[in-house]
Amino acid sequence: MSPWDPRSVIAAKRDGHRLAPEEIERFVLAFARGEVGDGPASAFLMASLLNGLDADETLGMTRAMVASGDTVSFAGLGRPTVDKHSTGGVADGVTLVFAPLAAALGLAVAKLSGRGLGHTGGTLDKLEAIPGFRTDLAPADIERQVADVGCAVAAQSPSLVPADAALYALRDATATVPSVPLIAASVMSKKLAIGTDLILLDVKAGSGAFMKTVDEARSLADACRVLAAGAGRRAGVAVTDMSQPLGDAVGNALDIAEAIALLRGEGAGRLRELAVWFAARALETVEGVAFDEARARAGAALDDGAALERFGAMIEAQGGDPRVLDDPSLLPRAPVIVPLLADRSGRLAAVQAEAVGLASGALGAGRMRRGDPVDPAVGIVLRPKIGDRLAAGEPIGEVHARTEDEAAGAGRRVLAALEIVDGPVDVPELVHTWWGP
Amino acid sequence: MSPWDPRSVIAAKRDGHRLAPEEIERFVLAFARGEVGDGPASAFLMASLLNGLDADETLGMTRAMVASGDTVSFAGLGRPTVDKHSTGGVADGVTLVFAPLAAALGLAVAKLSGRGLGHTGGTLDKLEAIPGFRTDLAPADIERQVADVGCAVAAQSPSLVPADAALYALRDATATVPSVPLIAASVMSKKLAIGTDLILLDVKAGSGAFMKTVDEARSLADACRVLAAGAGRRAGVAVTDMSQPLGDAVGNALDIAEAIALLRGEGAGRLRELAVWFAARALETVEGVAFDEARARAGAALDDGAALERFGAMIEAQGGDPRVLDDPSLLPRAPVIVPLLADRSGRLAAVQAEAVGLASGALGAGRMRRGDPVDPAVGIVLRPKIGDRLAAGEPIGEVHARTEDEAAGAGRRVLAALEIVDGPVDVPELVHTWWGP
Repeated sequence: MSPWDPRSVIAAKRDGHRLAPEEIERFVLAFARGEVGDGPASAFLMASLLNGLDADETLGMTRAMVASGDTVSFAGLGRPTVDKHSTGGVADGVTLVFAPLAAALGLAVAKLSGRGLGHTGGTLDKLEAIPGFRTDLAPADIERQVADVGCAVAAQSPSLVPADAALYALRDATATVPSVPLIAASVMSKKLAIGTDLILLDVKAGSGAFMKTVDEARSLADACRVLAAGAGRRAGVAVTDMSQPLGDAVGNALDIAEAIALLRGEGAGRLRELAVWFAARALETVEGVAFDEARARAGAALDDGAALERFGAMIEAQGGDPRVLDDPSLLPRAPVIVPLLADRSGRLAAVQAEAVGLASGALGAGRMRRGDPVDPAVGIVLRPKIGDRLAAGEPIGEVHARTEDEAAGAGRRVLAALEIVDGPVDVPELVHTWWGP
Repeated sequence: MSPWDPRSVIAAKRDGHRLAPEEIERFVLAFARGEVGDGPASAFLMASLLNGLDADETLGMTRAMVASGDTVSFAGLGRPTVDKHSTGGVADGVTLVFAPLAAALGLAVAKLSGRGLGHTGGTLDKLEAIPGFRTDLAPADIERQVADVGCAVAAQSPSLVPADAALYALRDATATVPSVPLIAASVMSKKLAIGTDLILLDVKAGSGAFMKTVDEARSLADACRVLAAGAGRRAGVAVTDMSQPLGDAVGNALDIAEAIALLRGEGAGRLRELAVWFAARALETVEGVAFDEARARAGAALDDGAALERFGAMIEAQGGDPRVLDDPSLLPRAPVIVPLLADRSGRLAAVQAEAVGLASGALGAGRMRRGDPVDPAVGIVLRPKIGDRLAAGEPIGEVHARTEDEAAGAGRRVLAALEIVDGPVDVPELVHTWWGP
């Protein structure tokens, strides 16, 4: 009997063969245990990127990633538990509004987030802009909070899907990030490791997302849906617009202030619309409420203060100061706040959303390297959406910065990211695709 | 200015773009210096295997491998220097005969060999079967010996093309060996690092070679020829038959005994024929002697003892006991020698040459891991060639082994590797292709 040779797995994928899911599982688990080195793993990743992984192979890889670490279950808490995840975009504060809103609707949201790299901070960084707010909760505390409050947003333990972190670091170093099956396995491994009754996945498409086109986003959404089905989990998958920043705020404390305003029922717009939409889809899916009725209920929970009340309870449960809900001046504030003025008249036709995110990152709102701190106070507020009519000199937002120079630089970058035209403009759909469970 | 990012090189090859040779050189040199890790290097190797490297890219990689270490020059010794290299096969003892033969013809052969893995030992292992023979010569000693004796076969210093050893180890671990450009870069980097007037390359094709078909071998031969031309070096490249063991001996001391017999002018056959052929090509190329005339001179140098005399001088210069030339019993001898008997009558139609090599390796003649010792005494002698008529029970060779059991096992494997048929048989060409400089 010759021992198992990981090269047989690499060679099969190199030669375009289909692997048995068990072979991929074995390879990935051996990598996670350190028995397969970075070299063979990288060669396998490149062969997989170039020759593809089918649904079964991707499921094998995902299962191995889940099996590489601990899993947690938030099912069976007495009310239906929901995990909502976005593939990431600019001014994408949906989770901040969705979690307390869903809780107000009788659902339970258990959201474990990683602290990734990004132009701006992640959901954890945003919440930590609230004085005292803690995200390092023990699993038992999260479970208790979800049962009591209806929502919790906490840091994902490093013992959850460690193979994903290791594989992602390798993919980042080896130019093997852009592969739909590899991205899907990474996204879904983290969802499958957390037991909930429903997974809601928001795959972003456009200039501010990793997937630049709706077609690419739809491929990823489909791969994720198939993985959830293969793992026997209920999942609803949407492809939504990221051709412009979703909300107005691109920062950390600024996003919290925007979320609070929406939870107070103040303001409308696409961010409120999408948070309501996802809450309604959750209600429809797990409670069988008709979608229009569910949407009306979700809107009402924003307008009548029920969602705000849940957000206050979550802040309090996680050690934060709930007075921020009434007094946003308790949030960190940048020393320099400079208004953004439209530099020409016309209709807003396009926004290079990634450039806006990078401008905010350059102000200090994001991190370039793992472990870097983020500045909670700085960022950008940009109010117009595609289709809006602007007048030259009209205030369209602000830059929140540490210095006048940084503010001026960011302002120039944001204005350069806007395309303003004279003719008519097509407004992009907010939701391109929805596949319910 | 952002620093150079090795991922840009991987991504370009991943996406099927052509790289500037300088980009590949930079990547390979950074790997050789440890600045690019095994992961990125392996991803690059897999992308190169799957998407190909063109002639300029391969030359860039080869140049970087040469530049990763020391180089030596044996040019300008007063007589034309020749480096002969085979891509490897079974019973491929051409170098052992060629080196003293070329020396007897007035050429100078400077041969630096690596100590690779293989079913049977390499040229160094075979020569070290001669009592006292040393292959760890200093560059100055090699140069002096080549000038005095006309030939030297020594171990390649680890400081010569270290990037090749590092890349080869990575390719072996990552299933990225079978790529014509990568193989050509590996072969030719070692040749280009050694300055000689002529490179003779013997690319083997068939069941006992890495390249199983003549077409595959021709692709590799062509890639090597293009690399030599790109580097401004004279090279003659042949594709020769390895559809059966070339000589009769598959071991170490057994190969030396066979080489001695041929150098004594005893025995004919394909091994003698090919050694003469290469010596004649060398004479033709560097001295302008007509090929038929050159072949006659080479044959005569075997028959009249001139080549044997040079072999004796080389053995003496490298510390070995030259009495082996007259008394082969001074060579290591296995305790068990069992005759091989044909198990049926008919014509030999095919030999699974690799299986014969593996049978010899299982006896202890080769090494599975770097640094393992080889047993100089054991091995196989198999005399019939394709087209020969055999009678059942006729002695066709011997197994030289450490135990009766091992001998019996090897005998069974060798007989199973022979295809004996009743009808007529095509005898394979010895030389399929020759491209002179």
